[in-house]
Amino acid sequence: MSSSLSLFVRCAVLAVVGLIMAPAVEAADRDKLLSEPGVYGTFAAFTLDEDWAKEDQATRIAHLTVLRGVVEQHREKIAIDLYLTRGLSDHADIMFRMHAVELRETQKFLLDLQSSLFGKHLKTAGIMHGLTKKANYVPGFPDQLKADLKTASESGPKPYAIVIPIRKSPDWWALDQDKRAAMMKEHTEATLPYIKTVKRKLYHSSGLDDLDFITYFETSKLEDFHSLILSLEKVKEFQYTRRFGHPTLIGTAMSLPDIMEALAQ
Amino acid sequence: MSSSLSLFVRCAVLAVVGLIMAPAVEAADRDKLLSEPGVYGTFAAFTLDEDWAKEDQATRIAHLTVLRGVVEQHREKIAIDLYLTRGLSDHADIMFRMHAVELRETQKFLLDLQSSLFGKHLKTAGIMHGLTKKANYVPGFPDQLKADLKTASESGPKPYAIVIPIRKSPDWWALDQDKRAAMMKEHTEATLPYIKTVKRKLYHSSGLDDLDFITYFETSKLEDFHSLILSLEKVKEFQYTRRFGHPTLIGTAMSLPDIMEALAQ
Amino acid sequence: MSSSLSLFVRCAVLAVVGLIMAPAVEAADRDKLLSEPGVYGTFAAFTLDEDWAKEDQATRIAHLTVLRGVVEQHREKIAIDLYLTRGLSDHADIMFRMHAVELRETQKFLLDLQSSLFGKHLKTAGIMHGLTKKANYVPGFPDQLKADLKTASESGPKPYAIVIPIRKSPDWWALDQDKRAAMMKEHTEATLPYIKTVKRKLYHSSGLDDLDFITYFETSKLEDFHSLILSLEKVKEFQYTRRFGHPTLIGTAMSLPDIMEALAQ
Amino acid sequence: MSSSLSLFVRCAVLAVVGLIMAPAVEAADRDKLLSEPGVYGTFAAFTLDEDWAKEDQATRIAHLTVLRGVVEQHREKIAIDLYLTRGLSDHADIMFRMHAVELRETQKFLLDLQSSLFGKHLKTAGIMHGLTKKANYVPGFPDQLKADLKTASESGPKPYAIVIPIRKSPDWWALDQDKRAAMMKEHTEATLPYIKTVKRKLYHSSGLDDLDFITYFETSKLEDFHSLILSLEKVKEFQYTRRFGHPTLIGTAMSLPDIMEALAQ
Amino acid sequence: MSSSLSLFVRCAVLAVVGLIMAPAVEAADRDKLLSEPGVYGTFAAFTLDEDWAKEDQATRIAHLTVLRGVVEQHREKIAIDLYLTRGLSDHADIMFRMHAVELRETQKFLLDLQSSLFGKHLKTAGIMHGLTKKANYVPGFPDQLKADLKTASESGPKPYAIVIPIRKSPDWWALDQDKRAAMMKEHTEATLPYIKTVKRKLYHSSGLDDLDFITYFETSKLEDFHSLILSLEKVKEFQYTRRFGHPTLIGTAMSLPDIMEALAQ
Repeated sequence: MSSSLSLFVRCAVLAVVGLIMAPAVEAADRDKLLSEPGVYGTFAAFTLDEDWAKEDQATRIAHLTVLRGVVEQHREKIAIDLYLTRGLSDHADIMFRMHAVELRETQKFLLDLQSSLFGKHLKTAGIMHGLTKKANYVPGFPDQLKADLKTASESGPKPYAIVIPIRKSPDWWALDQDKRAAMMKEHTEATLPYIKTVKRKLYHSSGLDDLDFITYFETSKLEDFHSLILSLEKVKEFQYTRRFGHPTLIGTAMSLPDIMEALAQ
Repeated sequence: MSSSLSLFVRCAVLAVVGLIMAPAVEAADRDKLLSEPGVYGTFAAFTLDEDWAKEDQATRIAHLTVLRGVVEQHREKIAIDLYLTRGLSDHADIMFRMHAVELRETQKFLLDLQSSLFGKHLKTAGIMHGLTKKANYVPGFPDQLKADLKTASESGPKPYAIVIPIRKSPDWWALDQDKRAAMMKEHTEATLPYIKTVKRKLYHSSGLDDLDFITYFETSKLEDFHSLILSLEKVKEFQYTRRFGHPTLIGTAMSLPDIMEALAQ
Repeated sequence: MSSSLSLFVRCAVLAVVGLIMAPAVEAADRDKLLSEPGVYGTFAAFTLDEDWAKEDQATRIAHLTVLRGVVEQHREKIAIDLYLTRGLSDHADIMFRMHAVELRETQKFLLDLQSSLFGKHLKTAGIMHGLTKKANYVPGFPDQLKADLKTASESGPKPYAIVIPIRKSPDWWALDQDKRAAMMKEHTEATLPYIKTVKRKLYHSSGLDDLDFITYFETSKLEDFHSLILSLEKVKEFQYTRRFGHPTLIGTAMSLPDIMEALAQ
Repeated sequence: MSSSLSLFVRCAVLAVVGLIMAPAVEAADRDKLLSEPGVYGTFAAFTLDEDWAKEDQATRIAHLTVLRGVVEQHREKIAIDLYLTRGLSDHADIMFRMHAVELRETQKFLLDLQSSLFGKHLKTAGIMHGLTKKANYVPGFPDQLKADLKTASESGPKPYAIVIPIRKSPDWWALDQDKRAAMMKEHTEATLPYIKTVKRKLYHSSGLDDLDFITYFETSKLEDFHSLILSLEKVKEFQYTRRFGHPTLIGTAMSLPDIMEALAQ
Repeated sequence: MSSSLSLFVRCAVLAVVGLIMAPAVEAADRDKLLSEPGVYGTFAAFTLDEDWAKEDQATRIAHLTVLRGVVEQHREKIAIDLYLTRGLSDHADIMFRMHAVELRETQKFLLDLQSSLFGKHLKTAGIMHGLTKKANYVPGFPDQLKADLKTASESGPKPYAIVIPIRKSPDWWALDQDKRAAMMKEHTEATLPYIKTVKRKLYHSSGLDDLDFITYFETSKLEDFHSLILSLEKVKEFQYTRRFGHPTLIGTAMSLPDIMEALAQ
């Protein structure tokens, strides 16, 4: 696509998007949803159907404006993040990450999304749910490790996002808490070299889907992320992992306007 | 979707639905079907085809009215529950749970459903059958445990429903009855902390499909349900589970009018 | 569907079906095919495509009449049974069981079926082949067990039919004949309590498809069938089973006119 | 299909097919390709798309004439065999077996086939490649076994063809050559009773696809083939087989005119 | 296709392609991307949709010209190689290999590709990412082995390209570095006989997709490649491989004009 056409699309999208910065109050809610325990995180990945490519650009922009409307309507109760997975993951074109206190709120959003003009072009590639919980093993870690874990992440954008679903083997759950804690200490120590450049977030899934955990990563340095995963494959706890990925979802975190621009083309 | 339009849909749906409360006699049959042994429970999950989204609302409402008719026609012989799985499960949009004394009655209902105007939009995502049976291990449990198991479930709605299909390993069935009973006692004890907030129901499937059991849960507190599953993963009996979920189906229990309203949009 | 419309369909179907009772000579061939060793049994399961539901009833009846013609044309060489799996199995709508002395005869029938006006609506869900053989282990069984195995099946219709494909583990085939015979004796004894109410038939598949055996069951008492499978899961021989089901196919045996009526609706 | 119509189709097909007997020179090349080491064997299985069934017969015959043209065009460099798998295998309707000295020649044929009018109706079900090599273990076998292996196959047509892809376990390759040779001797001895009625051909696949071997069988006596596979499942070497079939492809070998006639209907 | 028509297509394609030789500066960048560590290699495989075959040739050529434009537009930042997998792999028709310093650049190219007129006909078959890194075990190898590894590859075209994705077992990563190094020495020695005729390149994938490694091969002698893989299956390190292929992708490396010509037909 020529850059002049690209510029036209950007202008058209911005024109319909307008200012969608969330007011301060809302941002506070979002901070709570993204940091507190007892919150349900849902990852929903979609592919665009074949008709999407055939719609003309004006129609696509109109539909994307509907997407903006649906997202805005649910922002009060749900923190919604968007990722462009097209071109990086073979499973999906677009991924939503949602945080809500009640899973029903997330369901309502996804129902509205799927029944919208934009949503009619979406085919569900996967939905995974997890719950944020207080750290299970950290309280028993040595003080130095606890302190190290508080190292601040480097500031600046972390455009790459990776989601790795995990299922532990039954042997893992059969271990007593002490043995699991010792292995999780080794696991945690292996993450320290990457604590500044790779942000991690953990969701507990048992019963909510076919997983035990959803692990979520953000980074601007993919090579560090790769090294982190390699380190985690070498600790003893990894022997108790039955499923790791399948699928691994990799995408780029994008603002709603940027997603709209990318999909409008 | 704007709330005014939503209100319009609700009115339209209610207008065609009318009063569908089942008379007292029927309710009694339903109670028996849902509580007695020797009843066949079938879980049938469907996705809506791509044409559904393209039908205009009036057509969708007309088709949903047909759904109501088919359900009513079979209410005498089958207890039918509906769940909205769209937005929560990636496998299905809608799930039916049916209880009948003869599996042929359930087949007749599903045949009528699938050949109806509404049913032509349904694509079968999965069908699982199980039989309710008298408790196998409970009679041998200590009196205290038996008493604990009689703890009443908290009243009030339990909107979330989860279905987890299970296949045991051949090693499980090779154990003698005493060893299995001892492990099931440990399993049962692990469920006690959640007995008030998470309702469970068990279906025996061996031979009727590719499962040994279908486990069904209802709760308003998903976090309790998650904790329950986590506890069950830690008891010894879980080591003898070859398949747990795959798929796990999660949805919200809904009355027929509410399902109709949700799908009409 | 209202019962008056259903009656109309029944009449229309019967009108085109006419008398399709097979003459006595043919029945004798059928008896031989269904009881003798050296016969190839094929199970072919199909789903109906999306266009089928959209055809009007007259067209559907016309197409089903073609089905009748194709079946009749091949009755001389093949014993053909039909099962309605729709509403019970998620893999298929209709299943054919065919017995023939040469597998090419079965192929010819299925070719004619698939190229017929009715067959154009069929999508193949699965084809499995097996060979009937003289009992392998029975000759070495104690006389009492041999006598017990001759217990007559209860008369009366056995509407439910279940097909369970089986693959043994390599360890099974590595056992010497004596060890396998001892386990099959235990296996056979476990079936005795259900010998009156559950009919069984065994097909040997190694090399003809990805299975070692196809097991076929008929019953009017599904609970007995379930108990039978549960008993078979508890004997030692089951430890040597790598695949059991996947898919399990469950349906109702139906005459050709009844299948036609069910599919015409 | 009535036999008079069938006769018409046969005439129409023969009329367009004409004489396609290959001249003597070509046959010699074919013999070399089918008997020498260092030749690439490719098995390509296809299903016919839904439009094929909707084309009228004249169009189908015209398209099949194109198939004949494509096959003839590549006969100089590739030995091409055709199999009708429809009605016997659920994975495919038609299978091509190709032998060529360079895999690129096979690719060229398949490219021409797929871009032809007939090929536009083909959907690829599977492609497998293997290399013919000099016998690995036979040179070390006892003289008697070597002599037995030279027993001529019974003359006459062998209409059934079966393809079984195989992957060995890593344990197999970790064994030293002597141990593998001893097991292959036992394996080979197990095949002797069927050497007259079941023809075998072996292709080595490691690296060329997800297999280690493709085994190909031809027979007129399927029961002997079944017994052969059963014998091979009982030898020690079978314990080192990770994948056997999946899919097993079974079909009938057919001349091009016969395939054309079968597909024209 | 007759060779005269083929000639016409070749002329038409060349006419629209024009001279697309990359200037010297660009080639240098390409050399760096293909030889240095810290570069992201992406393999994206696509199938052509059913509409592609139905477009007339002029339209196909026009769309392929768009492909050329998209490739040229991104050549500055990405090294792009094309492979024709149609006729050799059942998973894909065309494969792109891309090397870029930032994975986002590759995403941008694939987004532009997929939203182009040509790209609308592409269905994603698979995307895999890996990172080039400095050799891990080679520095510790004996000098002779290091010298042997520097043997130059035979010059001349290497038309066949094979991609084999690999996942190691958790046991592999649990081994200490010395044990892994010893096994990788044995692995490397097994590759020496083929070092002249089979080019290899390794990509590290852990975390970037569901793999640990992507191995890429180029050769003109497929039999040597097959022998190489067979040798690698026999070394101890292969016991620690959980996934090898699935899919194995095999195709022929082609220049953009040649790909355009092949797909235009």
